[in-house]
Amino acid sequence: MTAIHHTRRTRLAALLAGHDVDALLVTRGVNVRYLTGLASSNAAVLVRADASAVLATDSRYIETARRHCAGVEVVERRDVAGSLAGMAARPGIEAHDMSVALYRRLGGDLVPLDRPVEALRVVKDESEIDALRVACELTDQAFADVLPAIAPGTTERELARALEARMGELGADRPAFDTIVASGPNGSVPHHAPTARPIERGDLVTMDFGALYQGYHADMTRTVAVGEPAAWQRDLYELVLRAQRAGREALAPGADIAEVDGAARGLIEAAGHGEHFGHGLGHGVGLEIHEDPFLRSTGAGRLEDRVPITVEPGVYLPGRGGVRIEDTLVTRAGGPELLTRTTKELLVL
Amino acid sequence: MTAIHHTRRTRLAALLAGHDVDALLVTRGVNVRYLTGLASSNAAVLVRADASAVLATDSRYIETARRHCAGVEVVERRDVAGSLAGMAARPGIEAHDMSVALYRRLGGDLVPLDRPVEALRVVKDESEIDALRVACELTDQAFADVLPAIAPGTTERELARALEARMGELGADRPAFDTIVASGPNGSVPHHAPTARPIERGDLVTMDFGALYQGYHADMTRTVAVGEPAAWQRDLYELVLRAQRAGREALAPGADIAEVDGAARGLIEAAGHGEHFGHGLGHGVGLEIHEDPFLRSTGAGRLEDRVPITVEPGVYLPGRGGVRIEDTLVTRAGGPELLTRTTKELLVL
Repeated sequence: MTAIHHTRRTRLAALLAGHDVDALLVTRGVNVRYLTGLASSNAAVLVRADASAVLATDSRYIETARRHCAGVEVVERRDVAGSLAGMAARPGIEAHDMSVALYRRLGGDLVPLDRPVEALRVVKDESEIDALRVACELTDQAFADVLPAIAPGTTERELARALEARMGELGADRPAFDTIVASGPNGSVPHHAPTARPIERGDLVTMDFGALYQGYHADMTRTVAVGEPAAWQRDLYELVLRAQRAGREALAPGADIAEVDGAARGLIEAAGHGEHFGHGLGHGVGLEIHEDPFLRSTGAGRLEDRVPITVEPGVYLPGRGGVRIEDTLVTRAGGPELLTRTTKELLVL
Repeated sequence: MTAIHHTRRTRLAALLAGHDVDALLVTRGVNVRYLTGLASSNAAVLVRADASAVLATDSRYIETARRHCAGVEVVERRDVAGSLAGMAARPGIEAHDMSVALYRRLGGDLVPLDRPVEALRVVKDESEIDALRVACELTDQAFADVLPAIAPGTTERELARALEARMGELGADRPAFDTIVASGPNGSVPHHAPTARPIERGDLVTMDFGALYQGYHADMTRTVAVGEPAAWQRDLYELVLRAQRAGREALAPGADIAEVDGAARGLIEAAGHGEHFGHGLGHGVGLEIHEDPFLRSTGAGRLEDRVPITVEPGVYLPGRGGVRIEDTLVTRAGGPELLTRTTKELLVL
């Protein structure tokens, strides 16, 4: 792993050359992990223009850092950012991460920069995609194994717990995020927290979940029907499925981000449900569950090659229910690689 | 729940009167939850000096907010902080939470304040302590149920997974934090992430874990011996146990924070292990796993009544192993209330 982290720091140093700074003070935990391999709730790394680096963490993590983070100087400090800030004459900072309080306390010649490490993180190396592929396989397998439990009488909470437990048994580090299970009318709330509501015959049930594996986040949503669906439920499902396919097919290196969103959104709007699809079409995934790039109608820029990303249109009808279908994919020159492989045919259970 | 949130907002408004602001823009997710009941990854609330409030969140959470957050005006926005900042002439901000990037973008007359909502959150109401009590009961029960699995051949990761799965089955929302299982020499790393190392006869095994229940975080650590412990292991355990007892007994409304830390630390230092106890004695728990107050040798101030807090001394011997013993308690006038009730006698398994 060390070679990879060194490569990343070298790429960051090259990127810093475009700014009037002599180093970057990296305070965001996930970015410290990306650049050094250390997962810690209190660590920071200073990466200098020559790609040398100093990693600071406290006594809880210091032995791990010394054992595993080769190629960087490791120092034990409690005030990790404060200690490192003084080691550069004119350090850049992560303006989206550093708090106003810390910024005021450090004072000095700090140069706010706009997400430089996140910019590096958009395009993944193959070792990252490998981890994400495993995370998605665990997610698929857990869904297949839990399928028999999606039946009248099972509560949303029981189903969420079953999915999370099964992912853990299969080898996930933990769930990638809080599992969503939304049944019947609850399906109209995109981020519904699972309740004690038992699944009933006639429900659509939306499950949004994923495994975390070696720091990488899988993200998948499926909506199934319990009992024979009504015509409006089947129509809604078919609409969202068509939109989801259009979104997937629009994914390509070089594609305009707003146009990818529009490929799916246009179908939903044409069916008169534009106002019932209030969120973006998808988001990057990696060391975070939501990361750049974000697929939105207001999004700027173009997709690159080797970018893991979700495609997840939904239609939410207040008081009635909803449908969302989501995959995790990776942009590739020859067409997107699908990482979540569970069927998207409407399952009638 | 609504009455409680209204009471909290009223207390906050009273606190704002001491500052030159006409409102507080609350951006920290856990504080938004504390003041409104809404758990969301994208929400903010503006609490005015008259205790009226506007809650902003995006389409994913808007229906939940409208259903459950009575007594506040609810508006649907994606740029939650930006929308609310303009609704006050001179709003305070949470300086420890707002990023430099957002602060620069909002501009205007923002007044950085120092953790006003955290100050309110230190002393818990009884409904919060009730939730925490349940969280700790689930933690105790999971430990009792998993005890037979702490045996030679079980890996750290299997044990962590068993604890987390059992807490879920018993009714936890999820683990309160990533479970630590550190066996044998790994015990010298306070925040060791569980590995595939199988437990061996002769190991000390440290487990640091807890349940999350209705947003409240339990935190408990126990160290057990697998097979008859060596003399040094037994001595180390007895030392940490004595220090932990001294720390618990020092907890009282009005106690000086540094003196509480010192009550435990002094014993460890006197035994020649001061340098092997590199972290603070404990921390507040509640809607966060680590929150004010922090028990440290450098800590200032005094404890108050009804403050849930951990007491967790540890001694870590590089290359050999370690011991940590931790309880969650609540300060009370008549002596601390112990919430984690698992025995602290050295269990020899």
